[in-house]
Amino acid sequence: MVKIPPGRELLVTTDFSLEGVHFRRAWHSPDSVGHRCLARGLSDIAAMGGVPLAAFLSLALPAKLPQKWVDGFLRGLLALARKHGVGLAGGDTAQSPGSPSEAKILADIVVVGAVPAGKSVPRSGAKPGDLIYVTGALGASAATLEKMYIHPEKKLNPGKYPQHFFPEPRVAVGKFLSERGTTNAMIDLSDGLSTDLDHLCQESGVAARLFAELIPQAKGATLLQALHGGEDYELLFTVPARRKAPRSIAGVPITRIGEILSGRRSASRVELAKQGDSTERLRPLGWEHFALARRPR
Amino acid sequence: MVKIPPGRELLVTTDFSLEGVHFRRAWHSPDSVGHRCLARGLSDIAAMGGVPLAAFLSLALPAKLPQKWVDGFLRGLLALARKHGVGLAGGDTAQSPGSPSEAKILADIVVVGAVPAGKSVPRSGAKPGDLIYVTGALGASAATLEKMYIHPEKKLNPGKYPQHFFPEPRVAVGKFLSERGTTNAMIDLSDGLSTDLDHLCQESGVAARLFAELIPQAKGATLLQALHGGEDYELLFTVPARRKAPRSIAGVPITRIGEILSGRRSASRVELAKQGDSTERLRPLGWEHFALARRPR
Repeated sequence: MVKIPPGRELLVTTDFSLEGVHFRRAWHSPDSVGHRCLARGLSDIAAMGGVPLAAFLSLALPAKLPQKWVDGFLRGLLALARKHGVGLAGGDTAQSPGSPSEAKILADIVVVGAVPAGKSVPRSGAKPGDLIYVTGALGASAATLEKMYIHPEKKLNPGKYPQHFFPEPRVAVGKFLSERGTTNAMIDLSDGLSTDLDHLCQESGVAARLFAELIPQAKGATLLQALHGGEDYELLFTVPARRKAPRSIAGVPITRIGEILSGRRSASRVELAKQGDSTERLRPLGWEHFALARRPR
Repeated sequence: MVKIPPGRELLVTTDFSLEGVHFRRAWHSPDSVGHRCLARGLSDIAAMGGVPLAAFLSLALPAKLPQKWVDGFLRGLLALARKHGVGLAGGDTAQSPGSPSEAKILADIVVVGAVPAGKSVPRSGAKPGDLIYVTGALGASAATLEKMYIHPEKKLNPGKYPQHFFPEPRVAVGKFLSERGTTNAMIDLSDGLSTDLDHLCQESGVAARLFAELIPQAKGATLLQALHGGEDYELLFTVPARRKAPRSIAGVPITRIGEILSGRRSASRVELAKQGDSTERLRPLGWEHFALARRPR
């Protein structure tokens, strides 16, 4: 049972973390997989402006998986849970299907959160003229993933690539923005800027223009990785132009990267303006989770 | 977002339905898989005495799965959801991992429910002297499963074996019992009577005695199937001996099958008394979901 404080609305999110789709055992340490599993759910709650209250975990494991792996997974998940004051309140366990060589680790995380009634921030509220902001810097997670694709045999030190292995969901930023009430729409960048902004535009019935030179690239990340790389778990939000967003919230830098335009019916909803160059259509190319599954192994 | 009526406590359940573990594509029609997927969650809510409000579905699908299968799955799930006034409020989708011949259908259903504050029925409240009751009849689902094991090539007509293919979660019974407030402990029979009663005894710190001749066997089911067969989704509950349970609730027959004894520390918590025979220890042999995974295919 979870107690919802009076005057709050309930938020529920559910996110898969599937071996071979969202992570690989050869690349991701068990505590990183556990951390990332919960981070996905917390980031969804943050994007609605809510505060997480409890998590529920469904976990299916191959029969031959060492207990040490499970211990590490739970250690990573629970460390992040503690940090956000979230209890692991239940779940389900099963043996995962398939032959011993094919059975996969399958996790589904449910996060229950709350937001003051009427204060949750939708994806669908962006208005023409709004300015578009993002938290932090983009592309670090994709840059790390690419490093692992290029040298699949080399195990990276997770501590050196925290944005990929231990991303920080922006719960405090989301809460601040929903309490201020000046944010029209918000989404978390789990699938990549181009794809997630496209979702937001689609749900809001608007279009958007990004300015290439304003996009905060993480150290070591290319513009393409910042535009299309998934799993940064930063927040993107829109604010009416007359209201300015602060330069930082809860210690996280906030950067203006574009503006909302009036909606179009065409498939192209997002355009990218480059200084001294023509504006181009930005296709939603977030390589997201599927990238891992699609590539040959 | 889900609205929780004031004065209610929130219930959250999460249950996997994994191909090769909980169902097989060759045996279970897509609408049966969808129905059973949601039934698992609704039954958990029923066992706490709650009313389901909303469902969230995480669904990972093999790349080559025909859309027709997905349509059938959702049709089965949504038909049961409508029957219980439950909306499908969100979820997650992914491509399931593994080679084309090994990729599995993976579903995780989350059901959010509510119960008047202080009225939820725990698993841990059984007291020595309580009488043990079950709803309906037991073993039908296991009997059907065994039929499919024996003739794996023969496809059964789901309409002829509704308890296995389209089980009815006992939501109205659970609600009635929690409102009356005379039930000390309750659990749903998803893993099998012997296993689920063992769970209840463990959580309550008590033991139990079942009377073999009182156990309501479903038509065509053996005593062993009634004792150990999973997926009946009936409710088992305990009531103080001075309070009697009605003979039927919401049209579902209620049968007394045993009594709660004072707790023991030994591994054996449940015993089975047979008329004219000695009492024997009943081991928790619920063959549950894992049975499907463990057998060679």
